[in-house]
Parts: sequence; C-alpha cells; structure tokens
Amino acid sequence: MRIGVLGTGMVGQAIAARLAGLGHEVMMGSREANNPKALDFAAASGARAGSFGQAADFAEIVFNCTNGANALSALQLAGADNLRGKVLADLSNPLDFSRGFPPFLSVCNTDSLAETIQRAFPETCVVKTLCTVNADIMVEPRRLSGNHHVYLSGNDEAAKEAIRALLVEFGWRKVIDLGGIETARGQEMMMPLWLSLWKGLGTAQFNFTLVTDEGNDGDQGLT
Amino acid sequence: MRIGVLGTGMVGQAIAARLAGLGHEVMMGSREANNPKALDFAAASGARAGSFGQAADFAEIVFNCTNGANALSALQLAGADNLRGKVLADLSNPLDFSRGFPPFLSVCNTDSLAETIQRAFPETCVVKTLCTVNADIMVEPRRLSGNHHVYLSGNDEAAKEAIRALLVEFGWRKVIDLGGIETARGQEMMMPLWLSLWKGLGTAQFNFTLVTDEGNDGDQGLT
Repeated sequence: MRIGVLGTGMVGQAIAARLAGLGHEVMMGSREANNPKALDFAAASGARAGSFGQAADFAEIVFNCTNGANALSALQLAGADNLRGKVLADLSNPLDFSRGFPPFLSVCNTDSLAETIQRAFPETCVVKTLCTVNADIMVEPRRLSGNHHVYLSGNDEAAKEAIRALLVEFGWRKVIDLGGIETARGQEMMMPLWLSLWKGLGTAQFNFTLVTDEGNDGDQGLT
Repeated sequence: MRIGVLGTGMVGQAIAARLAGLGHEVMMGSREANNPKALDFAAASGARAGSFGQAADFAEIVFNCTNGANALSALQLAGADNLRGKVLADLSNPLDFSRGFPPFLSVCNTDSLAETIQRAFPETCVVKTLCTVNADIMVEPRRLSGNHHVYLSGNDEAAKEAIRALLVEFGWRKVIDLGGIETARGQEMMMPLWLSLWKGLGTAQFNFTLVTDEGNDGDQGLT
C-alpha cells in the first residue's frame, strides 16, 4: 500500500520505518522537501522523501505524525486536494509547552485535535489512533507482554478498518473502536495520566489492558 | 476508625456500607440531617446518619462522595473547622450535564476538582482516588479478575497512606501513587474514555491493568 508519513520526528521515523519494513511503499513528508532527516530515512530504508504535499499526493493512506501544535499547518501544506477521499490516521497530541513541563492540552473536553482536523478537512476520513502510547510501543506492541490495547476513533467505518489492518500488521492484537471522531477526546485526554505514570515509572514503555467482568483480555463487547 | 461519608447516592451508599461491613464506625452525612436515604442506610447497617457538618465533626477520615457539581457547597456545609487537620478522600467527578449526555468536565487540563477543594480547604489533606471506576468496583475490586489498578493523588504522604490502607481493606492489590494533588487531573480526565468504553461494552464493570516492559502486573516502579 502507498502510505504518506507526515513528520520527521520520533513518531514519524518509527511509523515510516515500520511500514517500509512491512513492505509498504512509504514517502516521508516534511515542511521542506530536502529535510535532512527525511532524506536520511529514505536513503536508509529505500523509501521516498518529499514535501508534505508530495507525500499526501503519493499516498492512499496518510499518517499525521507531526507534533500537535503544528498539525493543522502541516495538513494545510499537505493540501485538501491531496487529502480528499483519503484515510488520515491522526497520531498527534495537542500539547502546549508554553508554560513548561508538564504540557497542557491546547484543546480538550468539548473538542479535540482530531475533530478540529476533521472539520478542517471534511472530505478526508480522519481516524484517531496510537496517541496513547510511546512511539516504540506504537509500532512494536509486543515489546510489552499481554493483551494491551489501542483505540480507534472516527466517523468512517471503512477508514477505521483500513487503519485496524495496519495496526494488526504492527502486531496489535486488541484494537478497540471507541466510536465517532468525538471519542478522540478520550484518547487525547489520557495524556495527563500518561505523563504522571511516565514520571513515576521512569519509562515510557507501558500501556494498559482493559479488564472486564468476563475476563482480563477485553475480548467481548468491543473489538 | 471513625469515618464520615458525605453523600447518599450510589457512591456514598457503596462506600458507607463497605466501611461499616469492615467494622469501621461510619456516619453518613447529607444536606439535611433527616435525609431518608441516610436514615435507611443507618437503620440497615447499624451506622449513624447526620448532617454534613455532623459527619465531618464525627470523623477521623472523610469521604467526599457527593456529585462533582455539589462537592464544594457540600464541603462548605461540612465546615472548614470540622475538616481541619483531617484526611479527605475525594471520589467525585466534575461532571457537567448542562449540555446533556455525555457530560463534559466542569474543570480540567489546567486545574481539577481535587485541586479546587484543596485550595478551598488548605488545612485538610485531600487525596483523590477511586474516581476512575464504578461504585461496585470501588468497594469490591475482586469482582474483576487480575491486578487492575487504582490511583492516589495528594500532597500529604501520611494521608495517602491512610487511604491506601482502606483501599487494601476493600481488596485493592495495586494502588498507584501518582504524586501531588495536581496529578488528580489525570484521574479526572479519564472520564471521556471511561464513558466511551461504558457505552461500547454495555457495562460499567471494567478497569485497566498497567502493563510495563517488566511484566503485566505493574509491580515495579510505582506502588
């Protein structure tokens, strides 16, 4: 599958490398087409590098791996025409570091970054996912033992199934569909708890398993 | 131990009944001292019923089980003098139903209800806990299999240890100390995800297990 990965940071590098390793045709997109980190990635992996617009135009599925503060401007550069009718996996967290660490959320509670993106690109099928775990866990969930979970939020069922299929390729065994794009608020609002646990545990290598009254693997009810 | 339980709703009833069953001396406090639900509880359990102020005055430890919208006014009625120097477990969620269901949070991100309460009662040791699970799970965690988790947030270590001891009596095996009272934001902001899962699973009987790279019981790092 042809996949555009927007962003050259830790998340973009992890997602692009994993997708390329799985045999997908990947183009890493960045603000400037000659971004050294994107060119290095392309040289090392045999993948492509280009501008945000070139990566979106190339792709059947686009991963937004930019940081939350720049996500909308990056997607504007990618271009509504290039994103039209496509699936856009949004992995970004709306973090505001203007008051230092820990960051606040720049949007939450009555709205989310994923909904903001969906409103800005109404002809694109936005799917919020993976923003609740560290980049290493995103692409290699089996680093952690057990049936831990990741979530999907989005308005288009086929788009969610397309992203679910890629998550299964990454190794995810439990992918929980939370519902429409408004349920992205729940994913994005896990950040404060995640940050406290990160600080306390001294590692970002953790996640959660849903435990229900019918067992501890979350098999029933939600898939 | 003498424990005041503020609130006669589902959470107050569950907490008060469980504490009385464990042999603690319980007084259920309500806005009006002759609240029929509190009197019924007292008659059925051999515990006491009284006003918010009487329950706080009676208690060594106070549980705030009022709903979030009324928590501050209930605690004002309980009285700063009656709460001074005491441990106050805050179980309430700052839910705003003014726009219907699902509710929003009336405070989040840069503040929390627990912090609001701590600022209003600076001589009381507020500990946020249990707000991430349903009332049945709060008091009987073994309804769910496995080592699922509950959290503590608060500025006073001795107060957190006092609440931890009661949680262990309830049957909790994993009680994670997140840090100061500001970490209550993380607990309270889990609500949107919890509501989506509740809707999807069709049951409120669920919780989460922390999974780390050293195993799936969260034994290390945080206790």
